[in-house]
Amino acid sequence: TNYDTIISYANAYDTIPMFPVFEVSHYILMILAVRQDFQEGTKHLAQTNPLVCWFCSMLSSFAGGILANFLLGQPILAAFSNHINIGIATIVWYLIFYCPGDVFFNLVSSFPAQLLFIPFKEVIRMRKIAGGVAQAAAIYPSGFLVMLIIGTVKGTGSMQMRNIERLLRGTSGPSSNQLTTPSFTMKGSILISLLIVLQRYMMLPVPLSLLLLCCMLTMATVKVFVLYGSRDP
Amino acid sequence: TNYDTIISYANAYDTIPMFPVFEVSHYILMILAVRQDFQEGTKHLAQTNPLVCWFCSMLSSFAGGILANFLLGQPILAAFSNHINIGIATIVWYLIFYCPGDVFFNLVSSFPAQLLFIPFKEVIRMRKIAGGVAQAAAIYPSGFLVMLIIGTVKGTGSMQMRNIERLLRGTSGPSSNQLTTPSFTMKGSILISLLIVLQRYMMLPVPLSLLLLCCMLTMATVKVFVLYGSRDP
Amino acid sequence: TNYDTIISYANAYDTIPMFPVFEVSHYILMILAVRQDFQEGTKHLAQTNPLVCWFCSMLSSFAGGILANFLLGQPILAAFSNHINIGIATIVWYLIFYCPGDVFFNLVSSFPAQLLFIPFKEVIRMRKIAGGVAQAAAIYPSGFLVMLIIGTVKGTGSMQMRNIERLLRGTSGPSSNQLTTPSFTMKGSILISLLIVLQRYMMLPVPLSLLLLCCMLTMATVKVFVLYGSRDP
Ligand SMILES: [Mg+2]
Ligand SMILES: [Mg+2]
Ligand SMILES: [Mg+2]
Repeated sequence: TNYDTIISYANAYDTIPMFPVFEVSHYILMILAVRQDFQEGTKHLAQTNPLVCWFCSMLSSFAGGILANFLLGQPILAAFSNHINIGIATIVWYLIFYCPGDVFFNLVSSFPAQLLFIPFKEVIRMRKIAGGVAQAAAIYPSGFLVMLIIGTVKGTGSMQMRNIERLLRGTSGPSSNQLTTPSFTMKGSILISLLIVLQRYMMLPVPLSLLLLCCMLTMATVKVFVLYGSRDP
Repeated sequence: TNYDTIISYANAYDTIPMFPVFEVSHYILMILAVRQDFQEGTKHLAQTNPLVCWFCSMLSSFAGGILANFLLGQPILAAFSNHINIGIATIVWYLIFYCPGDVFFNLVSSFPAQLLFIPFKEVIRMRKIAGGVAQAAAIYPSGFLVMLIIGTVKGTGSMQMRNIERLLRGTSGPSSNQLTTPSFTMKGSILISLLIVLQRYMMLPVPLSLLLLCCMLTMATVKVFVLYGSRDP
Repeated sequence: TNYDTIISYANAYDTIPMFPVFEVSHYILMILAVRQDFQEGTKHLAQTNPLVCWFCSMLSSFAGGILANFLLGQPILAAFSNHINIGIATIVWYLIFYCPGDVFFNLVSSFPAQLLFIPFKEVIRMRKIAGGVAQAAAIYPSGFLVMLIIGTVKGTGSMQMRNIERLLRGTSGPSSNQLTTPSFTMKGSILISLLIVLQRYMMLPVPLSLLLLCCMLTMATVKVFVLYGSRDP
């Protein structure tokens, strides 16, 4: 039947390995955002202080895990023990900041590349949110609020981490506060965390894979439209 | 004898369940303080951003547990897994901020209601301090400084949390610093933590229940007198 | 042979107990730095608020352990459960701030005393860095970045803690940022952590005790020269 076909698509989607294409897309978008944040605040920090630049890039790339572990009383530095991920993120960081002629930066921040990376990022965001809800449920099996908070934090980690990075860099730019002025991504992540928690409590009669597929498609569609809009207003 | 009668009163006091009357008094006073802090800083945040308003109210209501867990390397979000407490605090939050005609707010912030809630709050504060000392003793059986710090933090959680809440709200009001300018409650909580630790080390020859009763009566008396004084100077 | 003699010296160095001479030197230097930091910001805080003064002194003295435990999800207050260390640090704190005629302060901040304490401090710093690397390795046996970060944090704890202390004191002095403007000690600690990690991975063919001895001698020599230089420019 039709529904069975959709389910089989959803299951196929659910088994796509994140590594390496989606992971790399995530690192590219995160470190691009760090570079953009640098230009607003301290200029040329990448030249004068590569260590801080690298550290902020890693904090952004692994923000979700760092913050979730902090909130759950687990080692904050856990992300730094995964050398393969850190290594790939370091290569991406190097290419974005120091590639001769800014070739890599211009390539990945071009419109067609963004059109590719932004949906990829939403794929990995759904995995991260679902993983966060599962991580919280492993510690508090009935703690639906904890699941909701950890899911949201895993989905929007780099935004929450932005102010901490600015503090570490000593930049006094305009602070972004996702609680008082939530972005679309923040609102979406809260809603998706809520849907995943409801599905977990058997209050949504759909398989998790299908739910994640629908959420991903919705987020990616909206984000691509926003990208189009900001380009041709 | 006379002493036996007092001990029996103290033991009776020690077995009063905190739930629900004392818990509710605690939530009412904590969330009233959040509303008061809002009016000094950002106005009407409750209308424009109910989510932040709710989050700050929960942080204040469960501040002691959150900070104690942070200092002891335990999950910070543990308080959010207790749905009954969160549910009751949410109802109190709703009534204080959104009750039509501010009926509930005017009722609970009236003088007679305060006269009732303030002693109730001291009852629950003693329980929280004693619980904090016991929690620290379970991890560091001979760590009397750790017991002292955790006891104080559990007794004055919401005051320590105030600055964190303001940061989350993006308010740049005058920061309150309980370390440099300790309030009466802060000083009292340090002293009571010290007494409980001394009792634990068998250096005070009274049962814990009697000690808590005396401390509670002293704190409540002083606070009620302060309330009278601020009303009719 | 000659190398064997050096190794035997290194092993003898490695078994020197830190307690009490080196520990006390560490506390003296840390609490002197707190007093110096006070004079730049809030004056006479030691007189008006001894509790904050004591708390900042303890945070500085045990900064490495506090921050390392924070980053590894272990109890932040662990240092406060070691009463002998806290007791000795408290005696040093009392003598530095409240000794009549500032006799102790003038004594320990004199040039000959500094000439003694600064090398002693480097001895204990090497132990702390090696201990930090081992602590991280116990949790993440192959997490070389985690070892590097924890080693650096253990070696430079009090510098990282400075801004937190200023926040607790409510001082708004010039913030020191070891990430953007690293001191010589910071750079040295990163390098030494790296060397210890490399030795651990069998990539440096020297015993750990010899490596620590060489690093200590280098750091102490440079620091003593800097001390001479700042005195007679
Ligand atoms: Mg992330
Ligand atoms: Mg409290
Ligand atoms: Mg230190």
